[in-house]
Amino acid sequence: MDLKKQIESLSNIDNLYKQDFLLSWEKSESELGFILEIAAILKKMRERNISPRVFDSGLAVSIFRDNSTRTRFSYASAANLLGLAVQDMDETKSQIAHGETVRETANMISFLSDFIGIRDDMFLGEGNKYMREVASALDDGFKQGVLPQRPGIINLQCDMDHPTQAMADLLHLKEYYGSLSALKGKKIVMSWAYSPSYGKPLSVPQGIIALMTRFGMEVELCHPEGYGLIPEIVEIAKTNARNCGGSFKVSNSMEDSMKNADIVYPKSWAPFHIMQQRTELLKNSDKNGLQDLEKVCLENNAKFKSWEYNQAKMNLTKDKNALYLHCLPADISGVSCKEGEVSADVFEKYRTQTYIEAGFKPYIIAAMMFANKFEHPQLMLKSLVEKNTKRFMEHG
Amino acid sequence: MDLKKQIESLSNIDNLYKQDFLLSWEKSESELGFILEIAAILKKMRERNISPRVFDSGLAVSIFRDNSTRTRFSYASAANLLGLAVQDMDETKSQIAHGETVRETANMISFLSDFIGIRDDMFLGEGNKYMREVASALDDGFKQGVLPQRPGIINLQCDMDHPTQAMADLLHLKEYYGSLSALKGKKIVMSWAYSPSYGKPLSVPQGIIALMTRFGMEVELCHPEGYGLIPEIVEIAKTNARNCGGSFKVSNSMEDSMKNADIVYPKSWAPFHIMQQRTELLKNSDKNGLQDLEKVCLENNAKFKSWEYNQAKMNLTKDKNALYLHCLPADISGVSCKEGEVSADVFEKYRTQTYIEAGFKPYIIAAMMFANKFEHPQLMLKSLVEKNTKRFMEHG
Amino acid sequence: MDLKKQIESLSNIDNLYKQDFLLSWEKSESELGFILEIAAILKKMRERNISPRVFDSGLAVSIFRDNSTRTRFSYASAANLLGLAVQDMDETKSQIAHGETVRETANMISFLSDFIGIRDDMFLGEGNKYMREVASALDDGFKQGVLPQRPGIINLQCDMDHPTQAMADLLHLKEYYGSLSALKGKKIVMSWAYSPSYGKPLSVPQGIIALMTRFGMEVELCHPEGYGLIPEIVEIAKTNARNCGGSFKVSNSMEDSMKNADIVYPKSWAPFHIMQQRTELLKNSDKNGLQDLEKVCLENNAKFKSWEYNQAKMNLTKDKNALYLHCLPADISGVSCKEGEVSADVFEKYRTQTYIEAGFKPYIIAAMMFANKFEHPQLMLKSLVEKNTKRFMEHG
Repeated sequence: MDLKKQIESLSNIDNLYKQDFLLSWEKSESELGFILEIAAILKKMRERNISPRVFDSGLAVSIFRDNSTRTRFSYASAANLLGLAVQDMDETKSQIAHGETVRETANMISFLSDFIGIRDDMFLGEGNKYMREVASALDDGFKQGVLPQRPGIINLQCDMDHPTQAMADLLHLKEYYGSLSALKGKKIVMSWAYSPSYGKPLSVPQGIIALMTRFGMEVELCHPEGYGLIPEIVEIAKTNARNCGGSFKVSNSMEDSMKNADIVYPKSWAPFHIMQQRTELLKNSDKNGLQDLEKVCLENNAKFKSWEYNQAKMNLTKDKNALYLHCLPADISGVSCKEGEVSADVFEKYRTQTYIEAGFKPYIIAAMMFANKFEHPQLMLKSLVEKNTKRFMEHG
Repeated sequence: MDLKKQIESLSNIDNLYKQDFLLSWEKSESELGFILEIAAILKKMRERNISPRVFDSGLAVSIFRDNSTRTRFSYASAANLLGLAVQDMDETKSQIAHGETVRETANMISFLSDFIGIRDDMFLGEGNKYMREVASALDDGFKQGVLPQRPGIINLQCDMDHPTQAMADLLHLKEYYGSLSALKGKKIVMSWAYSPSYGKPLSVPQGIIALMTRFGMEVELCHPEGYGLIPEIVEIAKTNARNCGGSFKVSNSMEDSMKNADIVYPKSWAPFHIMQQRTELLKNSDKNGLQDLEKVCLENNAKFKSWEYNQAKMNLTKDKNALYLHCLPADISGVSCKEGEVSADVFEKYRTQTYIEAGFKPYIIAAMMFANKFEHPQLMLKSLVEKNTKRFMEHG
Repeated sequence: MDLKKQIESLSNIDNLYKQDFLLSWEKSESELGFILEIAAILKKMRERNISPRVFDSGLAVSIFRDNSTRTRFSYASAANLLGLAVQDMDETKSQIAHGETVRETANMISFLSDFIGIRDDMFLGEGNKYMREVASALDDGFKQGVLPQRPGIINLQCDMDHPTQAMADLLHLKEYYGSLSALKGKKIVMSWAYSPSYGKPLSVPQGIIALMTRFGMEVELCHPEGYGLIPEIVEIAKTNARNCGGSFKVSNSMEDSMKNADIVYPKSWAPFHIMQQRTELLKNSDKNGLQDLEKVCLENNAKFKSWEYNQAKMNLTKDKNALYLHCLPADISGVSCKEGEVSADVFEKYRTQTYIEAGFKPYIIAAMMFANKFEHPQLMLKSLVEKNTKRFMEHG
């Protein structure tokens, strides 16, 4: 579609203005769709060498309590695209900071900051709570005149949700199938898959089932018994499906779930109850306990090595050709590990698609920033396209 | 005051041009006041969304020989506000570099750099000396045609002074009371306070007594016997008071000092003679010696647990309501430690004020950069306000 | 020369457009000369406060698999000068990543990136190979529509070449003697020198002999027997000399080599066969083997303590005054070590020259970026000079 028309047809949504993006289920379908549209427009602008830079200066703070290359680069790219410099806040301490420390630090890093991106997915029950503590400290700081503006917070992965990932996945689906409405009735399977590692976070599968149930898809969560997600979030997915005209079910056979699937997302995660135990052990810095838990968990995992997504499973899907999704890096059998989440031939078939999928994340983050900063994003986009500042200079 | 009038009424001081900011007592009162005025103007500009960006590109190098979140963010914010990118220079080596290494490194990091911010407060007798070695290497590099410009150096804390902190505190007082002249006759108490940690640097209390004695205040330095600061800097405070129409005295009772105080700054520090011993032990990497010293020092500290600033002490101050200052983080009794520098209720009363106090630091640093870079800061500010480039884009 | 005339007289070379810079011997003499000219112009522009910023936003990724202050700052300076933000990619893992990991990571860090600068000089046979793996992954990602642009790769030092260093050295010679053609017939000696450390990379001497043989110089590589470089690269130097009208020879006496030298580059390196053994030991993480090798190597080095460049050696050179080159830091006898590569008095005589030499590197890197990004660099430079945006604002 023509870029100007695409901007003009943007809905006029303004209630994302000055709002944090912490959990996808706190946003309406139209708000989520709005973010997707802005992201797609920003992507197109950059590809056409039109700079969407709206900041002459400003900081985008990043707080990563866990290593990350992909999300870190996505955040840095989004900030840079809009004109902000990234400033890392080191949070290497293992203990969980609360109270006055959080309140004070949140203000100290925010005097000239426009956004704070936070990744905190290690401790069940803690990550999202921490983000809300920061949010509340910023609210107070702004109210008391400490801060000239209230920086927006973007959840770059917590214990409950991974909204920038799930939204990037959704934008990939939207572009792949042509529109959000084309997703109605599509069957998507979020399936557990075997991995030789343990302790992978729950936020990706949780983010997927909670988001994909918003747009009329037939969502199936599939995992071995005992590998459940946080029950409250499974409930959210159920409610979403009821409200949004799709379906949601939980099943326990990878083979069965794959039948007639349009889209599959085979990925390992640790069972909810294991993550709960792990959180307690981490809080107490109980190294022996952690080692014992890992041993038990890996032994249990090993019972489910057949949960590999491979040609045989793919042959069960719609036209033997379901779209394969993954947040990367995948555990590829014979490539990154001996036995893993996906066979090498199947992964290779969809490899480029997973890269394209990942490429939407910087623009999702930029769109979240954009919708937070401007009351009327569509007017601002229009004015940027008219201004037509080049991202890099052109001849003649 | 109206922004344009504020700029027009700026004094026409040009002898900060191309000068480093290493020690507050090397600057005249009018120069210090000039920095404060520029800082306040830059703050107001940003709050009104007028970008004070004066650099299209350029680096602001940071050399932090000690951990720091607050000062690091302040420096990054200041640099970014003016258009510079921060480039960190890792100086993790424990040994003190001198001679050719300093001379060479100073030049290697400066080819396209406009400022070098240095924090070096670990070793008594070393930090400020190191800054001067860097300065001298830059002078030579510029003279010899190695460097196309001579980067300015900003002292982000040394063994002698912490000028960006003290100047931020002073700007806070100026804004709180309305003017610098309103500070005349005000009683400010820089008091030692108990902390369960040891080895806190002397630069904050030294910076405070040396700066606050410049503006006609009644300055009192109060600490237990044996907890003195560097004698030469206490002498500077005395001389300042004599020359600038205020007073300076040293006392040894927290209760007595608080009587009728307008402003109080209760903060822990290590005694000068302990810091001297510590410096020798650190130089020799004497781990056992350091542990022994810490033990002795903490035992000695424990004798002074009554040096907590609390409601009873506050009740002795002017109108039972002296303004409480702290460079943060404070050791708050029952919050960040069992027994500390300040009681929780008193800290909470002034908490927001301490945050506001901290918020001036980025602008103090930016003002130091601004006054270094431009021969006529007031003309440049005028032209920036007329140009009225938006810090972030606005609708319409 | 007048800046505009200098730009107009630029050759119209366009086959560096969209090309990586991995090895100097993959470029023609005219291409190398073109990079030198652009670098000199960018340097002059910045010194005249004309901003060569061509990017409104964009990332320059850095991958440093080895510590580096000089090259890191050079890369950051170049990126910043053109308007890019540096984003570091941590590659602290000791094992060598290959295959899917490289392919995937290369794409994940490149969605909004314009350049990737890579330093990988630890493993013989690996560094340049790794860069080509990244290059190939980027080619594929661009072809498949994953990347909107193909980021350029700049070799910031590998096992074979150190092109940004050698090119900066060459630009220094060009400016020192007035022109590239003035270098014809000049004798340059790349000599091994004693150092109390071991394992210094071969890339500097290799880069020097392979590059300096392109411009009609009499190049002599001198080292103790057994301290040879990678044989294939010595062959390249021989061929270059044959093709470009100069000469190349290898000799084994520092004294003899210095006779009548115009330019000398005395620098330590580890013998090729030692680096081969070291690479195997590093790959196997064989700590004992590495310690043994270091011991043997240092004992062998110690036989050649007489390979110090000093006044006596200098007296043998042309007019007793050969230009001394070094990539810094040098091992200076009595300064940075007891006995080293160069005596203190000789180093001091040329110290400023070595600093000036180092100052060309940021501009060499910027020129490599510039020639990669623009099909017609001379038109773009012309337009930048006409536009005359100030690097920092000026009065009036």
